[in-house]
Amino acid sequence: MPEFKTVRGMRDFLPEEAHVMRYVEAKEREIAQLYGFKEIMTPIVESYELLSAKSGEEIRSRMFVFKDLGGRDVALRPEFTASVARLVATTFRNEPKPFRLFSFGSIYRYDEPQKGRYREIYQSNYELMGSSMPEADAEILMLTDSLMKSVGLKKCAFKIGHVGILKSILDQEKVGNKAQNAAMQLMDKKQYDNALQAIKKAEASEKCIEILRKLVELKGTKTVEIINKVKELVGYYPKSIESAQNLSEIISLVCAAKGKMNITVDAGFARGLEYYTGMIFEVYVPDLEIALAGGGRYDKLIELFGGAQTPAVGVAHGIDRIILAMQGQKTAVASREEKTAMVIPIQDEVKGEALRISETLRGQHIRVEVEVSGRKIANALENANRRKLDYAIIVGERELKDGAVVLRNLASREQNIVKIENLASIIRNAEMHSD
Amino acid sequence: MPEFKTVRGMRDFLPEEAHVMRYVEAKEREIAQLYGFKEIMTPIVESYELLSAKSGEEIRSRMFVFKDLGGRDVALRPEFTASVARLVATTFRNEPKPFRLFSFGSIYRYDEPQKGRYREIYQSNYELMGSSMPEADAEILMLTDSLMKSVGLKKCAFKIGHVGILKSILDQEKVGNKAQNAAMQLMDKKQYDNALQAIKKAEASEKCIEILRKLVELKGTKTVEIINKVKELVGYYPKSIESAQNLSEIISLVCAAKGKMNITVDAGFARGLEYYTGMIFEVYVPDLEIALAGGGRYDKLIELFGGAQTPAVGVAHGIDRIILAMQGQKTAVASREEKTAMVIPIQDEVKGEALRISETLRGQHIRVEVEVSGRKIANALENANRRKLDYAIIVGERELKDGAVVLRNLASREQNIVKIENLASIIRNAEMHSD
Repeated sequence: MPEFKTVRGMRDFLPEEAHVMRYVEAKEREIAQLYGFKEIMTPIVESYELLSAKSGEEIRSRMFVFKDLGGRDVALRPEFTASVARLVATTFRNEPKPFRLFSFGSIYRYDEPQKGRYREIYQSNYELMGSSMPEADAEILMLTDSLMKSVGLKKCAFKIGHVGILKSILDQEKVGNKAQNAAMQLMDKKQYDNALQAIKKAEASEKCIEILRKLVELKGTKTVEIINKVKELVGYYPKSIESAQNLSEIISLVCAAKGKMNITVDAGFARGLEYYTGMIFEVYVPDLEIALAGGGRYDKLIELFGGAQTPAVGVAHGIDRIILAMQGQKTAVASREEKTAMVIPIQDEVKGEALRISETLRGQHIRVEVEVSGRKIANALENANRRKLDYAIIVGERELKDGAVVLRNLASREQNIVKIENLASIIRNAEMHSD
Repeated sequence: MPEFKTVRGMRDFLPEEAHVMRYVEAKEREIAQLYGFKEIMTPIVESYELLSAKSGEEIRSRMFVFKDLGGRDVALRPEFTASVARLVATTFRNEPKPFRLFSFGSIYRYDEPQKGRYREIYQSNYELMGSSMPEADAEILMLTDSLMKSVGLKKCAFKIGHVGILKSILDQEKVGNKAQNAAMQLMDKKQYDNALQAIKKAEASEKCIEILRKLVELKGTKTVEIINKVKELVGYYPKSIESAQNLSEIISLVCAAKGKMNITVDAGFARGLEYYTGMIFEVYVPDLEIALAGGGRYDKLIELFGGAQTPAVGVAHGIDRIILAMQGQKTAVASREEKTAMVIPIQDEVKGEALRISETLRGQHIRVEVEVSGRKIANALENANRRKLDYAIIVGERELKDGAVVLRNLASREQNIVKIENLASIIRNAEMHSD
């Protein structure tokens, strides 16, 4: 028989990996609660029509698309935003604004598998709906910083730009939407020369090209200085100045709230997705080339899904990459597992009593495995030892007569006869003193 | 524009629904930890070959099957067991036995949508690998009972049978596997006459048919009495007596551990899936016809996936149905949400300071929303009030000069000037006294 395997690009999380994944998930949920984001859960299978409504061709071509048994064109979601936008445009149509939504789960993209890139991807998603104020943008940056810190990541660097700086110039130059998007995608790939040529072709002025050429080189961590240079450079384009000013307000709010942060302003920064309208950002750590998180403002998206005009700003955190970064930084997952005891009945006649004791302990929040392989006591102890359990609770007829059992510390090999009603507190006290 | 909808059979969990789902998920994970089950996470997309290896025709025909972009035949998992078996047969091949695995997530079945039945189904899954002892079976029943109690469900009734009682008779009568499976499936649908006819056709003896006719009527909550009657009735079939004895040991262990439980033994009980080999069970609550959980022993499954012979017993908990039962019983979800404060800056100049205060409070585990819509103070307070937040923290230049803000209790409308460093403890103390 050939060995069964996971499908290419898919993977299993073994116990230690699943533990880290659920740990980060819990941190994400905690951040959502602290910032007032309400969790929603949307289906993994959505209509193809919905999922392709906003996605660029690039994402569309990498979706898992199929027909369900009823002949419906469906796909596995490649991101959360389309589903959230569907809800905002329908169920939440009359929800008082602003409101905040959080999602956590898996998304599916048919990418070439490589380090940190799978076809089943875990993400969390935060969207703040109904505010166009800079403090909303700041909040998304702040909570992302808080999450990275709460999982123990150090040296997170924020790369921040503003779509409006470039777009306002192109708008004023009457460069069409299609050419704008093409240019933005080239810039996202850092092909600035090609991008400028595309813009030139779309009949932008010589002066504009010259400004853009200088603009895409303006980047750095001295954010105030960089943004001032941007404003000077784009002086001929009032909306572009406004965008730079908006970016400056957002960053100054974040810094007021957070103190020192590692922020690089990049005037030529463009993210692949076409729907951003304002601030955009990505988060990196040293030694990992892929972004751990990315997001921005997309004020026109909800209309695209048939909803009322709704300013919106959001972020997706890539959990697989965050975990990769945690591994790279050897970040300790607060894994101080509680102690586990193994209950071992030594005669068949006391099995029921052993199970009863195990239930009593679990009721007192002690983790208990029961010996269920019928091993003799010496083998059972050896097995428990090898598996690094902490205690054996040996249940035998003789001690049971006095309402007691033998409690053995597997590491120290000390053992004592202990009343059943005292077991939980003895184990718990030992836990407290052993740290 | 037509309104976007979820695909038929799929559904959204709005915040309150998602809260309950995550609450039950946390309870499942807690039970897994208390009983020593290690969590694993397997992909939702698996190869069709794997997923169809063990499933009966019925499940196979209701899978979401498609080709991925690489032309692979894949499907959305209709249950967890195939994926767990894959791991047990490969990655965990050399894992010392016994070991315990836990999974939680969504599965996919193309069923006709109805109350409590969707096409995206949430399940938890527990599998105890490597023990054929009755205490292993008992553990699966015990943890299921513990889970139901931990989410507050009352009057859970366990329906328990043993595949071996019937199967051993049919084996001894040399009824072929195919006819056996057909008969079991008819019994699962309670079509006992048809089932008996199928067995008759497969050339079972007259006496056998007569015994089976009486057997399928043996059921009731006096478990010892019923099992004794079964043993008497099947006296001519030694392996069948052994199965009844095994069932009796399992139930007596569960009762020793748990005290009084509502158990119905049903000698004619058969579950649809073909792979059970021993004890089988389902859990019900009054007023809901569908089972909340189901499982049993399947000692030959791992071989089917190319692994070594591995006795195994497990259970799947249907989370959607558990939630339906909780709603039916008006079970309170421990939802005592922590208090939420809204931070409202009253001048543009203090926005940064307001964000800083909000971050400080979150660092002290206080839930904080920031007013990000630019509303005037009266409107902001009205909005916070309507949304049932607990506190407003009004940040203004005058109080800030003294390192203070105005803390307003939105319900009582009391407000006081409070030093920023005292905010968290005042809010937390008020929480403690307000219960």
